[in-house]
Amino acid sequence: MNKEDIVAKFRELQLFITNELERVDGKARFEEDEWFREEGGGGFTRTLKNGNLIEKGGVAFSAVDGPVSDIMRKQLQLDGQTFSATGVSIVLHPNNPHVPIIHMNVRYFELDGGKTFWFGGGIDLTPHYIVEENAKEFHEDLKSICDKYNSEFYSKFKPWADKYFFIPHRNESRGIGGIFFDHQDAQNSGISKEQLFDFCFELGKSFPFIYEKQAGFGRLKEFSEQEILWRNIRRGRYVEFNLVNDKGTKFGLLSGGRTESILMSLPNNAQWEYCFPIEEDSKEAKTLKLLQTETKWIN
Amino acid sequence: MNKEDIVAKFRELQLFITNELERVDGKARFEEDEWFREEGGGGFTRTLKNGNLIEKGGVAFSAVDGPVSDIMRKQLQLDGQTFSATGVSIVLHPNNPHVPIIHMNVRYFELDGGKTFWFGGGIDLTPHYIVEENAKEFHEDLKSICDKYNSEFYSKFKPWADKYFFIPHRNESRGIGGIFFDHQDAQNSGISKEQLFDFCFELGKSFPFIYEKQAGFGRLKEFSEQEILWRNIRRGRYVEFNLVNDKGTKFGLLSGGRTESILMSLPNNAQWEYCFPIEEDSKEAKTLKLLQTETKWIN
Repeated sequence: MNKEDIVAKFRELQLFITNELERVDGKARFEEDEWFREEGGGGFTRTLKNGNLIEKGGVAFSAVDGPVSDIMRKQLQLDGQTFSATGVSIVLHPNNPHVPIIHMNVRYFELDGGKTFWFGGGIDLTPHYIVEENAKEFHEDLKSICDKYNSEFYSKFKPWADKYFFIPHRNESRGIGGIFFDHQDAQNSGISKEQLFDFCFELGKSFPFIYEKQAGFGRLKEFSEQEILWRNIRRGRYVEFNLVNDKGTKFGLLSGGRTESILMSLPNNAQWEYCFPIEEDSKEAKTLKLLQTETKWIN
Repeated sequence: MNKEDIVAKFRELQLFITNELERVDGKARFEEDEWFREEGGGGFTRTLKNGNLIEKGGVAFSAVDGPVSDIMRKQLQLDGQTFSATGVSIVLHPNNPHVPIIHMNVRYFELDGGKTFWFGGGIDLTPHYIVEENAKEFHEDLKSICDKYNSEFYSKFKPWADKYFFIPHRNESRGIGGIFFDHQDAQNSGISKEQLFDFCFELGKSFPFIYEKQAGFGRLKEFSEQEILWRNIRRGRYVEFNLVNDKGTKFGLLSGGRTESILMSLPNNAQWEYCFPIEEDSKEAKTLKLLQTETKWIN
């Protein structure tokens, strides 16, 4: 399986996902921007706003290549002369505070024309209000995909997500996690390059259905002004994670990536209040407590 | 002039400023939180919200000390065993889009009981809409304070602010700059420790009057929904600078500073829109163009 095949399949995946998400949303349509990178390659960024379900969302595809720059060598510890990278990235911010924010990414990286390669990616969920049964369901869905490829994937990739999506300055997790993996090749993953690709592709193809299920739990629930405020405060935390802690965002901005495509992950709006007050035993307090605890959602 | 004097005077400065800002606002009152740092010292954080003029503002005083940690040694390149740091920091976000956001900081740092010391600080302005005469007035006010202490300060500290408050991933300045300085001691500043302190103290004492004048230019102007949206988009850029680029914020969060005091600099709310459209020749386009150009506001 060569790079060109993977690029073509990832672009196909982007179109499949946006098509399905339009169906799930029922109202909004994606708009597409094509962009080019001076040093080589480019991408298609698809964004949607003011949907029935999704207030602001983006599904980005990119395929870039070129010489390994100093900043890449330093920050990514890349030992090569030229690189190619391709991937699909998604963040969806819903209107309804009872629907979670969701993020997905699958990516393929190779050095020096394929001498070394690896896959990375993951899906994670950020509910404004955590409902434990729904969190379990989400983790079960991810585990069942993982298990088809390697029975150790879920137990390796779940704690990886917990670690990656932690916000140290808040002592909170961004959400209920999911799976995260990086630098997976035919040696350390225990499966072949083709199987690794299939795993990423299946994760991507499952994404709209996993989201449809999770959104379905809350999208018809009524919500109050207070719940909107809490949603906006949680969006503030999402912004903090993405801008302060997220290695992918930081590297993208530092290395001269396309800012609008990188920051499509930010919500339409966010709020900050100094020492935001939370009532004891409220559902906000319950969510916060769960975010401050590493939870094993399923066995 | 020893550390205890400077700590006491900086606390006095905080109270002077909050008192004056309450007068300028005319409605809201500051609330005060006292906090303590495990390793030594603490602070008083004063915040205000929902004023006539100021939607969200904070004036923080802190005086902390203790052993130089590994992260301080590495990030601040500190060559010492123990440190003391004290300072006053301010960020004010106004309601009216025709009033600028303002930031001020003065700080004193010493190592090993005063063997080495330095002062740092600055004032800078972030108008949502840049009015050139007002920007000139602001820079003239700062220059006239600088000139009392050293005729080279303004010409050194103005470009320092331009450099510090630049947002590379947007190719924009955060605002119209002002002055910024760091590591000023009796050698490199050309003035004595007492004079350096006086300079910082006078900057701080002038702050409410400088703000009052700048706020006065716009606070009674009417504003539209479209201008509120633009204010919120500019607030988004303020958040990006503070969380991605600001060395002070990054160091504070990394080194285990008090998160709520550090992030009191964030606005009540902010917005992001993918590829936010700006009409040619609009006043938004004019402001953006000025932010993309390094401007010498005065001669």
